[in-house]
Amino acid sequence: MNLDLMTYVALGSIISIVFAYIMFNRVKSQPMGTDKMKKLSEYIQTGANAYLKRQYKGVGLFFSVIFIVLLVLSCMNLLNKFVPFAFLTGGFFSGLSGFIGMKTATMANARTACAAQQGLNKGLRVAFSAGSVMGFVVVGLGLFDLSIWYFFLKFWYTNIDIITNDSVMIQNITSNMLTFGMGASCMALFARVGGGIFTKAADVGADLVGKVEAGIPEDDPRNPAVIADNVGDNVGDVAGMGADLYESYVGSIVSTSALAVSAGLGMKGMAVPMLIAALGVIASIIGTFFVKTKENATQKSLLKSLRTGTYISALIIAVISGFVINYLLPKHMGVFYGVLAGLISGILIGFTTEYFTSDSYKPTRELSKTSETGPATVIIGGLSLGMSSTVWPVIIVGATVLVSFFACGGDITNILSFNRGLYGIGVAAVSMLSTLGITLATDAYGPIADNAGGIAEMAGLGEEVRERTDALDSLGNTTAATGKGFAIGSAALTALALIAAYISEIKTLAPGLVFDLSITNPPVLVGLFIGAMVPFLFAALTMDAVGKAAQSIVHEVRRQFKNIKGLLEGTAEPNYESCVDLCTKSSQKLMILPAILAVIVPILVGIILGVNGVAGFLAGTTITGFVLAIMMSNSGGAWDNAKKHIEAGNLGGKGSDNHKAAVVGDTVGDPFKDTSGPAINILIKLTSMVAIVFAGLTVACHIF
Amino acid sequence: MNLDLMTYVALGSIISIVFAYIMFNRVKSQPMGTDKMKKLSEYIQTGANAYLKRQYKGVGLFFSVIFIVLLVLSCMNLLNKFVPFAFLTGGFFSGLSGFIGMKTATMANARTACAAQQGLNKGLRVAFSAGSVMGFVVVGLGLFDLSIWYFFLKFWYTNIDIITNDSVMIQNITSNMLTFGMGASCMALFARVGGGIFTKAADVGADLVGKVEAGIPEDDPRNPAVIADNVGDNVGDVAGMGADLYESYVGSIVSTSALAVSAGLGMKGMAVPMLIAALGVIASIIGTFFVKTKENATQKSLLKSLRTGTYISALIIAVISGFVINYLLPKHMGVFYGVLAGLISGILIGFTTEYFTSDSYKPTRELSKTSETGPATVIIGGLSLGMSSTVWPVIIVGATVLVSFFACGGDITNILSFNRGLYGIGVAAVSMLSTLGITLATDAYGPIADNAGGIAEMAGLGEEVRERTDALDSLGNTTAATGKGFAIGSAALTALALIAAYISEIKTLAPGLVFDLSITNPPVLVGLFIGAMVPFLFAALTMDAVGKAAQSIVHEVRRQFKNIKGLLEGTAEPNYESCVDLCTKSSQKLMILPAILAVIVPILVGIILGVNGVAGFLAGTTITGFVLAIMMSNSGGAWDNAKKHIEAGNLGGKGSDNHKAAVVGDTVGDPFKDTSGPAINILIKLTSMVAIVFAGLTVACHIF
Repeated sequence: MNLDLMTYVALGSIISIVFAYIMFNRVKSQPMGTDKMKKLSEYIQTGANAYLKRQYKGVGLFFSVIFIVLLVLSCMNLLNKFVPFAFLTGGFFSGLSGFIGMKTATMANARTACAAQQGLNKGLRVAFSAGSVMGFVVVGLGLFDLSIWYFFLKFWYTNIDIITNDSVMIQNITSNMLTFGMGASCMALFARVGGGIFTKAADVGADLVGKVEAGIPEDDPRNPAVIADNVGDNVGDVAGMGADLYESYVGSIVSTSALAVSAGLGMKGMAVPMLIAALGVIASIIGTFFVKTKENATQKSLLKSLRTGTYISALIIAVISGFVINYLLPKHMGVFYGVLAGLISGILIGFTTEYFTSDSYKPTRELSKTSETGPATVIIGGLSLGMSSTVWPVIIVGATVLVSFFACGGDITNILSFNRGLYGIGVAAVSMLSTLGITLATDAYGPIADNAGGIAEMAGLGEEVRERTDALDSLGNTTAATGKGFAIGSAALTALALIAAYISEIKTLAPGLVFDLSITNPPVLVGLFIGAMVPFLFAALTMDAVGKAAQSIVHEVRRQFKNIKGLLEGTAEPNYESCVDLCTKSSQKLMILPAILAVIVPILVGIILGVNGVAGFLAGTTITGFVLAIMMSNSGGAWDNAKKHIEAGNLGGKGSDNHKAAVVGDTVGDPFKDTSGPAINILIKLTSMVAIVFAGLTVACHIF
Repeated sequence: MNLDLMTYVALGSIISIVFAYIMFNRVKSQPMGTDKMKKLSEYIQTGANAYLKRQYKGVGLFFSVIFIVLLVLSCMNLLNKFVPFAFLTGGFFSGLSGFIGMKTATMANARTACAAQQGLNKGLRVAFSAGSVMGFVVVGLGLFDLSIWYFFLKFWYTNIDIITNDSVMIQNITSNMLTFGMGASCMALFARVGGGIFTKAADVGADLVGKVEAGIPEDDPRNPAVIADNVGDNVGDVAGMGADLYESYVGSIVSTSALAVSAGLGMKGMAVPMLIAALGVIASIIGTFFVKTKENATQKSLLKSLRTGTYISALIIAVISGFVINYLLPKHMGVFYGVLAGLISGILIGFTTEYFTSDSYKPTRELSKTSETGPATVIIGGLSLGMSSTVWPVIIVGATVLVSFFACGGDITNILSFNRGLYGIGVAAVSMLSTLGITLATDAYGPIADNAGGIAEMAGLGEEVRERTDALDSLGNTTAATGKGFAIGSAALTALALIAAYISEIKTLAPGLVFDLSITNPPVLVGLFIGAMVPFLFAALTMDAVGKAAQSIVHEVRRQFKNIKGLLEGTAEPNYESCVDLCTKSSQKLMILPAILAVIVPILVGIILGVNGVAGFLAGTTITGFVLAIMMSNSGGAWDNAKKHIEAGNLGGKGSDNHKAAVVGDTVGDPFKDTSGPAINILIKLTSMVAIVFAGLTVACHIF
């Protein structure tokens, strides 16, 4: 029976990958435009490849070290023997989906610009199809990794290390699968943090010297950092976002499956989250067919069509999952409310993000007015906006937690019911992420449109085309903002499921261990304090990294303007590669410290404060990280759009003092929204993953 | 026996008040200088009085409402009958100490300027003596309020509502005393938040029009907002800081005493924290005698002399408390380690704050260099500095918690030992605050010196005097920064003691109630989330309030410059009162929302999420509030000093582009360090106090 269920999951994975392949070919078949466009696209591809090559080198080294550590620990029996290998496949598939997504994105930019010559809708279709490749590759490979490990472990425990008790077997399978999340997490860290540093260093560097000092327009081909800027969109916003959500996706699924055992829901309970995910593939594919509009579409109707796709997918999942749960867990229909809570809160968080960051609404409009009294008030206004914007997401996530816990029969006086409630929270996380195929497509579409705009500008395609790509890009800003809200919301729920899985892992590992997770217990309390501080430190380190990397770009661009004769006059070509190379090098170098921090701190906390301290630490990181990440993302998004609002001709328009003040906000917001905020997403999941993997070590030796 | 012990506490209170009185007379006997100085000082006094008058009106209304609510609740038997009255006395004495402190400060400003004509050391002595009045009044009235309630309740339970069981009697006494903290908290909220909004609105308003638009120097008497700015120093930094620490002081003492009962330490355990506090009075008085230097003192040696005073006080407390504990709790010498941990961590937190905010060290110097690439990098650098600076305070507080808990025999497997450990944490908080007499004196000295500088400038006392007051002021910046670190650190420990007292209160109120404070319990988790969000919201609201209030000042100053002929030429006088009045009105109006928030949210959380949710909420607010407050204070302090570093002639000096960029940082930092950061201090204690007072309501009705 159960084998059959997991076969559906494998099938979902294959359908997803096939659909991604079809979309890939559709994009590939589009014309690339003029020779100049081809050449520019090539530059970006080369740059992106160079970045990936170097990143994989760094990642390879990092993974080798961790692999060896894990191998040693597993030889010491502090870890299960499959963990080191699960770690590798998790990292591999996460990296692979980033790689494919980025390849497609860099292939699609010129094609989108070319299609935009024929109309807004045409451009949208190409960019969205390319985004879909990313979306469905992430989902497909995630489910694929899950399936192969499941079938392998099942085979192993049926034929080699024979386990006859079903419940013990699932326990073993799920707790092994849980650890491959750490591989995905580590890869995500590199992709998201490294990419985030790269993209903002290039952006800030290009702007500071090109726009401010030399006075040439944005995306001007004379600017040596312009290609690096475009590469950055791909490595940060496409590959980074993909890896981030890949991690949330598999993390939420495996942690929920692992909780099924302790909740007494057996194999069926284990299969439900995976089936919801597989169901999401089909629903997302159906949803993509609704993303189209008339040729004379306005920006508003474009946004509506993108949304319609997501809503239809969510609706399909809601309806069918009801039947699935009714069939598999007829006594636990409360799980269905978990599904609904997850789907609804995903949509609501997207809305609140849009409200606080789009210039169609009051907060960002008011923010743009603060520019009248100079940059200081812009900064205060933006920080305050971001801080206030945390209220709704907290309430939404809080309500989701309560609804899914209590609807699934959660009850503190009975351990089995309690775990069932926690399982419900996990299901909410999974269902929020079940529409990932299409939400990621609408998200990855943004940077592709942004790149297309860059190419249109550099290739001199004319006002009309640039206007269309601008419209696509601006729409992309909105989808990117909602996507970020979605990413953070799902990360928080995933982290909660992971914390619950951690505790249940500890109970299995050390059944006799007495622990007290009360917030009044000092190790828990101190863990909470440290956990609350780490996101701040992480944000500081990543912001500093952007600053330092940008500095090196500033010097290089200045050098080229000075040394290459005829560059500013347009008679000589800049050296694009050197800027790409610098960004690559510095982003890889500067992310080492945050990366080490994210891995080492949970281990250290475990050694010093024990299990109680680790649990407090994880909770502290999750709650404070969640709030801080939302604040940073929303402040950054609002500053960006407040500036764009002025550029659109309001409050004095481009070049006015108000505009200059707004640019200061935007520059501060760049690392906020594209580096530090997203990096915290990874942090809250990675720390939980590390804690789970090193749970054996924590149990074996700790001071308090 | 026990009566005797508390008599020592009453004696300490009287000594403290007498010492404050002597200091007050010493300051009063100093000459006030020229007629112009007298007049300026009068202006400031009048302004401060006008502010206080209006504030007390608002406070009166607020207290009346809460008093009635408490009365109703106590009639419904949801509260003890003494609570409403304890609430009033707490508010009254807190308000009184702020009033006296401010009176002294406004009386001392011209006298300090006058004394500075004779030398740096003379000026220091006057300003420090005035600061001492504040310090010892706070301590004296705090202990006084404690003593009268103790003797009254003891009399009541011995003669009227007769309780024969000693243990039950202490239980009743301490749990009643606990609630007078809420009155102090509410008063502190008004003083700190209202004062914080006032001072920064005046400061920012005065600077934006006077310095930037009209191009007149700081503290120029032609600026209509200059008196409001000086008044602000007194209402925000003197009265606000005093009320803040008054609250921490009494809060830590009463919560620790309340824990003594559940820790099985009886009357003696109850008396120990109070005796340590009383001992601190004597030690602090002795310490003040060491604050003096030679006439030709440098700034460095002045700082050293201020520090010597504090260290000597701490040393005396450490030694004598050893004997006291050995005499009263010979079996629990671990409590002594709690005392040591508190004293040491208070000093260490001050050090880290100084390291991150003084331009004698690398972080602030590096920050001033970021001005070379414009305001955006100054902002990013300052935020990042503040975020990184949270690491050490978290580690210090964490270590203090662990050391004091485990040294006092804390053990999670035994409830009595567990409570003894929590008592140890409370003792650490008390001992950190036991040097309050002298630490508050060094702290309150800063704004007095600042005001003296303003008067010296306005009265045209000449370069030399201004240089001396500048040196005093600059030293005041350092002591203010360390004072803020100290205030936040002690607030965090106090809040922890209050949370523990809350739980123990709940256990007494509802012995049969099953609760689970595990961080995996969803109501706790959701409480943590909400708790983490509230400090961000509070910071946003207070920053917005400063922005709005400053805006109204900007308009008023512009109006006066335009309408009063001869004002800029110096032939006509500005209307100072209107600016003071505006600041007063808007600060009182704009603080209503944050005040309501701080009181309502814990009650709402209790009604919705029950005891578990409240506990999570308090923990979340404390940990995130602690980290956020440190970040905001330190970012603000560093921006201020980075600007001063440039003004001292580095990196291009005053008027350079670098300076302009640094001014943007300083303007952002103003509400950070003087409004929002300190307001969070109050928030974390007030929410705990409200939770304690409304514990009965939470137990009686809650949804989850």
